[in-house]
Amino acid sequence: MKAMEAGIKIGSLQHGEKNCITDVSGVRVGHVTIKEDLSREECIRTGVTAILPHGANTFKEKVAAASYVVNGFGKTTGLIQIEELGLLESPILLTNTFCVGSVLQGGLQYMLKENPEIGDSTSSINIVVGECNDSYLNSARLLSVKPEHAMEAIRTASVDRAEEGAVGAGTGTICFGYKGGIGSASRIVPYKENTAYTVGVLVQSNFGKKDELYFDIIKQEDKMERPDGSIMMVLATDAPLSDRQLKRLAKRCPVGLSRIGSHIHHGSGDIVIAFSNAVTFSHNQKEGIETIDILREDHPVMNLLFQAVAEATEEAILNSLLQAERTNGRKGRVAEKIPDTIIHSLKQA
Amino acid sequence: MKAMEAGIKIGSLQHGEKNCITDVSGVRVGHVTIKEDLSREECIRTGVTAILPHGANTFKEKVAAASYVVNGFGKTTGLIQIEELGLLESPILLTNTFCVGSVLQGGLQYMLKENPEIGDSTSSINIVVGECNDSYLNSARLLSVKPEHAMEAIRTASVDRAEEGAVGAGTGTICFGYKGGIGSASRIVPYKENTAYTVGVLVQSNFGKKDELYFDIIKQEDKMERPDGSIMMVLATDAPLSDRQLKRLAKRCPVGLSRIGSHIHHGSGDIVIAFSNAVTFSHNQKEGIETIDILREDHPVMNLLFQAVAEATEEAILNSLLQAERTNGRKGRVAEKIPDTIIHSLKQA
Amino acid sequence: MKAMEAGIKIGSLQHGEKNCITDVSGVRVGHVTIKEDLSREECIRTGVTAILPHGANTFKEKVAAASYVVNGFGKTTGLIQIEELGLLESPILLTNTFCVGSVLQGGLQYMLKENPEIGDSTSSINIVVGECNDSYLNSARLLSVKPEHAMEAIRTASVDRAEEGAVGAGTGTICFGYKGGIGSASRIVPYKENTAYTVGVLVQSNFGKKDELYFDIIKQEDKMERPDGSIMMVLATDAPLSDRQLKRLAKRCPVGLSRIGSHIHHGSGDIVIAFSNAVTFSHNQKEGIETIDILREDHPVMNLLFQAVAEATEEAILNSLLQAERTNGRKGRVAEKIPDTIIHSLKQA
Amino acid sequence: MKAMEAGIKIGSLQHGEKNCITDVSGVRVGHVTIKEDLSREECIRTGVTAILPHGANTFKEKVAAASYVVNGFGKTTGLIQIEELGLLESPILLTNTFCVGSVLQGGLQYMLKENPEIGDSTSSINIVVGECNDSYLNSARLLSVKPEHAMEAIRTASVDRAEEGAVGAGTGTICFGYKGGIGSASRIVPYKENTAYTVGVLVQSNFGKKDELYFDIIKQEDKMERPDGSIMMVLATDAPLSDRQLKRLAKRCPVGLSRIGSHIHHGSGDIVIAFSNAVTFSHNQKEGIETIDILREDHPVMNLLFQAVAEATEEAILNSLLQAERTNGRKGRVAEKIPDTIIHSLKQA
Repeated sequence: MKAMEAGIKIGSLQHGEKNCITDVSGVRVGHVTIKEDLSREECIRTGVTAILPHGANTFKEKVAAASYVVNGFGKTTGLIQIEELGLLESPILLTNTFCVGSVLQGGLQYMLKENPEIGDSTSSINIVVGECNDSYLNSARLLSVKPEHAMEAIRTASVDRAEEGAVGAGTGTICFGYKGGIGSASRIVPYKENTAYTVGVLVQSNFGKKDELYFDIIKQEDKMERPDGSIMMVLATDAPLSDRQLKRLAKRCPVGLSRIGSHIHHGSGDIVIAFSNAVTFSHNQKEGIETIDILREDHPVMNLLFQAVAEATEEAILNSLLQAERTNGRKGRVAEKIPDTIIHSLKQA
Repeated sequence: MKAMEAGIKIGSLQHGEKNCITDVSGVRVGHVTIKEDLSREECIRTGVTAILPHGANTFKEKVAAASYVVNGFGKTTGLIQIEELGLLESPILLTNTFCVGSVLQGGLQYMLKENPEIGDSTSSINIVVGECNDSYLNSARLLSVKPEHAMEAIRTASVDRAEEGAVGAGTGTICFGYKGGIGSASRIVPYKENTAYTVGVLVQSNFGKKDELYFDIIKQEDKMERPDGSIMMVLATDAPLSDRQLKRLAKRCPVGLSRIGSHIHHGSGDIVIAFSNAVTFSHNQKEGIETIDILREDHPVMNLLFQAVAEATEEAILNSLLQAERTNGRKGRVAEKIPDTIIHSLKQA
Repeated sequence: MKAMEAGIKIGSLQHGEKNCITDVSGVRVGHVTIKEDLSREECIRTGVTAILPHGANTFKEKVAAASYVVNGFGKTTGLIQIEELGLLESPILLTNTFCVGSVLQGGLQYMLKENPEIGDSTSSINIVVGECNDSYLNSARLLSVKPEHAMEAIRTASVDRAEEGAVGAGTGTICFGYKGGIGSASRIVPYKENTAYTVGVLVQSNFGKKDELYFDIIKQEDKMERPDGSIMMVLATDAPLSDRQLKRLAKRCPVGLSRIGSHIHHGSGDIVIAFSNAVTFSHNQKEGIETIDILREDHPVMNLLFQAVAEATEEAILNSLLQAERTNGRKGRVAEKIPDTIIHSLKQA
Repeated sequence: MKAMEAGIKIGSLQHGEKNCITDVSGVRVGHVTIKEDLSREECIRTGVTAILPHGANTFKEKVAAASYVVNGFGKTTGLIQIEELGLLESPILLTNTFCVGSVLQGGLQYMLKENPEIGDSTSSINIVVGECNDSYLNSARLLSVKPEHAMEAIRTASVDRAEEGAVGAGTGTICFGYKGGIGSASRIVPYKENTAYTVGVLVQSNFGKKDELYFDIIKQEDKMERPDGSIMMVLATDAPLSDRQLKRLAKRCPVGLSRIGSHIHHGSGDIVIAFSNAVTFSHNQKEGIETIDILREDHPVMNLLFQAVAEATEEAILNSLLQAERTNGRKGRVAEKIPDTIIHSLKQA
């Protein structure tokens, strides 16, 4: 059950039809979940999540993009080139910290197959992989994610409402001391009479202590010994925004993150990757000049977009908790489902 | 033959004994070269180069570090965490663009073996991998570098004068239209009566057109059809510098790069990774306070360190050319050795 | 009345004795308030606030510092050099947007008088001036702040609990549609048995719509026509932190800002300046090496410092509202005091 | 005499008609030179230089802009907002380090007069002021530049070939141990049959030791005791570039700076401000969407623009030396004109 279905309202803007990042027209999400019990000591609880900006070849139709590193204790790849060129040219792949290499290679293999000219007659490709450390539940040292898993997550991505909770890259993650994982939400921003823009956020949640959730909304104690976690935030929109403007939106993701209770811990890799599929660049265009439509930042819609980002991020994190089931893992460890008492308190707030 | 042995003098500071990054006490370099002729169309010309900040376990003894992205058309991993924490905790691995995933995984496997607590009882580790696109000569789409190659490059790293030219990650790269590859140089900066600091630079050179080398020092035409290249620059020192000060040094690498003729092309991944092995942080230290010795920036030695970086970078690039042998590659392509006429002109300049 | 005195509790950490930035030992605050009624159309409602890192000559005893630009629609001066050198060498001066030039000159004149060698036998000095646009109430086009006002604010700065509300640089500012201004709060972070660190925040608040304050805690309508506002946040601590670590702390100020309801509007200059007076650098030191004590970031105290910053920022903003009196201004405009109904709701939350 | 007139050729691209930043159609430059001998000890040798992006009201017709801080030992104002919004909305004003406050206020007063709505019915304005420390020759502590001087420099700006050398903000500056000051150069970049773009650079040069100029082209000794200097670089173009692309161009200014011999010293404020007057944004536009023409970065013209920036920067610095006359200053100090022997050597190189 998503937050809205549980009667919890975050912010004041309307959500989209699916209340999911896939409300941004064309965006696709795919999960590969890897679960296996090897012994009491060793359990595989991990996976891959792929977010595609549209249904076409991402190398041939690049989209405007930006990133923002809230806290850089993280191993995300691909941000250097996004910053330099303001473009995303691959699916965004999420996984666990130790499998970034595998998933990077899987993403590359997928794109090489789709584009025989890469590395032959044209230049290279920049694959974007984000991660959280799921080693509390998952036997991360076993490096269970293989390149094929990444390829499958891309191949099976769809425009449906994305599965949430303990799936894909969220299979083994923990948030505020409870089972977290994948969560998503969206917001609709009215622009003119018959026009509106959609903002969608998808998170891989893996941070926080029990007593931080909404500032200890019900008295809780957290006895799990674990390092600071992380959160990956993927932000999609169909508003026509430049890379610089997308970075401004990305900087509003931590507004939502702060409101749900995060203090952005030292050991946390809190990273935003943002794109607009309303602004595309063809790889093969040979004209020297592009004509681009871009929103003016002094138009009131800009502040509404900022608000939409904050609300969707907060709600996506909440959804990652509400949608995740109790999950056991290595060494007999368990991550419980978020208790009803908290959900009840949130309904009344 | 290195530039100095050929009678070419770059700058005014003294070089170290080996005129190599390994003049910085403790620094180690290892190469794995992968060459195979599969057919006229397909040739493997690639490899891995590992740079280790010291002889101990890099995860347990981290060193102060910084990075600087001169131009971000590149796929280097690990910079986000270096920027956040100012620390390097893994070997620096260089390879080709398409094998970053493999090498990342190999570096990780090496460190996991050496540190059984990573991903179990302690946090994760940040592996740093840089790259150049060697696909003019190398059949890069075959993804020939395997994790084992990265592990071997680390294992075989030594404090000897590093091999240069068409070795390791430089096996297939091209610089100013000639065979480039790995190059290194060092400078000694006098500090006080009996003290001096060493600055060492190692580059993987893969950029530039023939007529850019020293601004067309001899009239040349460049007929090779290839995309803009890249350069990875690794900067080591034993001067006691903070991460912020190391970034300032890193920003002087492009001074040397500019002087040899680069215009830092659009499609170039020109990236500096800098560290000081005089400033170390133990992973297991439990004291809350570290006492650190750091150079004052208003001391005249700071400007000498800047000069040392510029000179060593320029000379390292030149050495990558002078030390590289003519190399043939896929599709019958050839990268020639830099001609004697150029070397002769440089001697007289 | 401060929030704590009104029975409103923000967060879980203890505040310092004065619950003010001046709880950080040595820190001084001075205000000059400029109010004059010229006509119904023209009123002066502005001023200067000075924050001094310690009681000594700031040029001769520089302190470790960093800045963080949350949103850069602002005219703050001095941040470029803080970023390059990690040092603060002048008082921090706050004023209105149009008087940055005057206040910069006043700050400079003060420092030139105190240090006859600046610009003669030694280098220049970097004066830091922040600002908010108070032109809703203040006749800002009259440029009423003179260099003397800045000098007086510095001269009269004291270690007492700082005055808050409609004073100094906060005389004419508006926050969440009510009279805002200067606010301050502090937090104590326990380190070891007999040691604790203090974090203090002082804000100049000038942002937000009525319905944003704690997400419309009581239903409110905002009819004031005005541009997006800004917030200056000054963060002081006696914890021994490097410039890089101070930037990490600075990035937690927006956590508090987000929690009170800000969406960080497009037209907002939201800027943090942070310093630690536990890490000082003498201008005249001639030794080349400094020995510095610095907190380890993997010590649990780091996350507590982050939390302290978030809590103190949120409470400082709240204090700026609670301490400000109803203020009239140009064109017959009025900024009302925050209503008791809101304070009452916050007590119960 | 400019370098080209002296027979010195920098690079391979053509220069514009005036070989000056004013070759970029619409760009205007104005100087106010302030020289007065007060006593043997005290001499005024300073001024203001204004660069206007076009002939219209810069607040009403903003232009795309970016900045790049090569080394941040400097006091330039206005860069925070340029970075956030990618826009320049005021003239760029250059002066001496101690008069940034005055010139900021003068620039503001000029713009307030021209735009009565600023600070009344519309928002604030961001004034950009750069500086070098001219206190070797100039009695900088006397704060001789007044707001009126800034206003006059703006008012008298023209599209003519700009005066160079010891004028305006360059009246008292020193470069490579000789009299430096204002210098400018331009380059023409062919785009398509009948189209070409112009790149213009104007510098305020104030850095370097004698033996650094072209790496000690003739053996020189430098006996002047003075702190590290600075260089302000203003980059103008009529190529249609976004703010991100302009930052990429700005990062090629240090390529030229490096080639003439700078090591970018510790105490140097080396700062680039770049704009394109081909991309304008009207302040009063009420449409939410802007349609913008932008150059594709993968078009070969991009690398030519990079080259043009490097060449024009190097030549502008050289022109600042060649055009400056011997100047005496406070305490009987003298900055000599660059000697003919150097010019002669450069002609032959």
